[in-house]
Amino acid sequence: MNFEMIKAAAGRLDGHARQTPILSSPFLDEIAGRKLMVKPECLQRTGSFKFRGAWSAISALSPETRARGVIAFSSGNHAQGIALAAREHAIPAVIVMPNDAPALKIANTKGYGAEVVLYDRPGGESREAVGEALARERGLTLIKPFDEPLVIAGQGTVGLEIAEQSQDGDVLVCCGGGGLTAGIALALAETAPKMRVRPVEPVGFDDMARSMISGVIEKNDTGTGNICDAILTPQPGEITFPIIQRLCGPGLVVTEQEACRAMVLAWQHLKVVAEPGGAVALAAALFHADKVEGPTVTAVVSGGNVDPTLFAETLQRYG
Amino acid sequence: MNFEMIKAAAGRLDGHARQTPILSSPFLDEIAGRKLMVKPECLQRTGSFKFRGAWSAISALSPETRARGVIAFSSGNHAQGIALAAREHAIPAVIVMPNDAPALKIANTKGYGAEVVLYDRPGGESREAVGEALARERGLTLIKPFDEPLVIAGQGTVGLEIAEQSQDGDVLVCCGGGGLTAGIALALAETAPKMRVRPVEPVGFDDMARSMISGVIEKNDTGTGNICDAILTPQPGEITFPIIQRLCGPGLVVTEQEACRAMVLAWQHLKVVAEPGGAVALAAALFHADKVEGPTVTAVVSGGNVDPTLFAETLQRYG
Repeated sequence: MNFEMIKAAAGRLDGHARQTPILSSPFLDEIAGRKLMVKPECLQRTGSFKFRGAWSAISALSPETRARGVIAFSSGNHAQGIALAAREHAIPAVIVMPNDAPALKIANTKGYGAEVVLYDRPGGESREAVGEALARERGLTLIKPFDEPLVIAGQGTVGLEIAEQSQDGDVLVCCGGGGLTAGIALALAETAPKMRVRPVEPVGFDDMARSMISGVIEKNDTGTGNICDAILTPQPGEITFPIIQRLCGPGLVVTEQEACRAMVLAWQHLKVVAEPGGAVALAAALFHADKVEGPTVTAVVSGGNVDPTLFAETLQRYG
Repeated sequence: MNFEMIKAAAGRLDGHARQTPILSSPFLDEIAGRKLMVKPECLQRTGSFKFRGAWSAISALSPETRARGVIAFSSGNHAQGIALAAREHAIPAVIVMPNDAPALKIANTKGYGAEVVLYDRPGGESREAVGEALARERGLTLIKPFDEPLVIAGQGTVGLEIAEQSQDGDVLVCCGGGGLTAGIALALAETAPKMRVRPVEPVGFDDMARSMISGVIEKNDTGTGNICDAILTPQPGEITFPIIQRLCGPGLVVTEQEACRAMVLAWQHLKVVAEPGGAVALAAALFHADKVEGPTVTAVVSGGNVDPTLFAETLQRYG
């Protein structure tokens, strides 16, 4: 896993993934107490950065392997990324999703042309068992959501774009399994070495922040029950953790309420739609400014796939 | 008023206005029945395209005239554009606004550093009388919202950017006084002559569509009472109308409900925030596809400054 893989992924993504802009607002600068630059990956195809990693991985498969199709386990954003990337490669995609995933995410994954197989998460069914049987039967290639070098390389292209816009300050990244964080950190270590990447997680799911302190992979007590559903993972990845440990500054932790307020401020001042989990880095920039260093800060809004009722209620409460 | 003025405006805007991306979604393509490209000017600074015209006009003033300050009449988006452009030129800005303008627009205009003077619109007070007295007293330059060549030139830079992404099909533009429509039409006549610009208006405020048919400037019966507040103007401009008459295809008209549904679809599939008036062109592309020509269509989302309660209620109703 190295910088050259990110450059190669950028070449494969060219003309397929969107180069997202950098947005800012004087109102947000004022709250953050410094110049705040936002990288809105919610504007990426399928509404999250996950399309980059999905495209990177699928486009790198050999033609014969790729033609048999791919399979992924995902609560949503990775699924949509894989579904669209597979469709544009004209290959089958099977997505194994929990039956309690947000309705919008299931519908969108089907809408992008994938076959969705639901497993009974609340009932304790194993997605691995369900998925492995299917993969064996049909010769599908599993694309992991974060602990896969080709996926990390794709997410790292976000970092290449950030470095074109800025060279200084902390870069706050929403962190679940750490694929986006590790990819951006690898990219910036080469292209903007003065920038420092910081993983941001929701309270109660700060496995990465705690692992960075202890030096070993720490688990969360639970995997559900937080509004930031897109970035709830049980523990850091085996590949992502050592990269983040080596290259990143201390992790930041935000509350659900802070994530919701950031979601509303992104709506109000940047005119982009963030999902709660996609807004945690922005929340840290806005509401934990004392823990951030430098005259400028960059925050990645990682996704915007959120149910309309939840979004409307949040707007009513904090708007 | 010519193409060279738009090129000159683009030079003055470089590094100050944002180049907005082009967004699309397979879900929207399916509804529109063709490839649909969206130009999200809601992502422009101050949340609407109006910043372009404001910057263009203020940056073209002589230093002495500019230093005395500017004044504008506006229900909102032009006001915010003028306020921020003036602040970045370090000059005073006075905005004369109706006392029934959306609270968010008044607050934002003040937030960008302008002095807001409210006039009693429901009570029949004349904004011209209020504004002219102030302008005389302080030596302020009036920047009109649309019937001003330098403003039209600034809005025309949207057309230059569209031509970089596409060369074919109808280009649907939200139309109030016609500054954005005329500017884009002038730009595309030179840079993408196969494209055809179409003004889009809300039902009951189709003064431009009717004027194009009759060949003379037609008025609307009323100036208020529609959710698309950003684009309610009493009649086409004296400068904008002949340009639009000469260069554009027939006007399109959408209902308030269609504008609201387009607003929700932009939220859902593009992750951008449109205000109702800013969504009428997208609504025409989605729901009046039979009146649009060609395998591709471009729709400009002109702004995203909308009250949170209205947005939340619309999401609940149509999401």
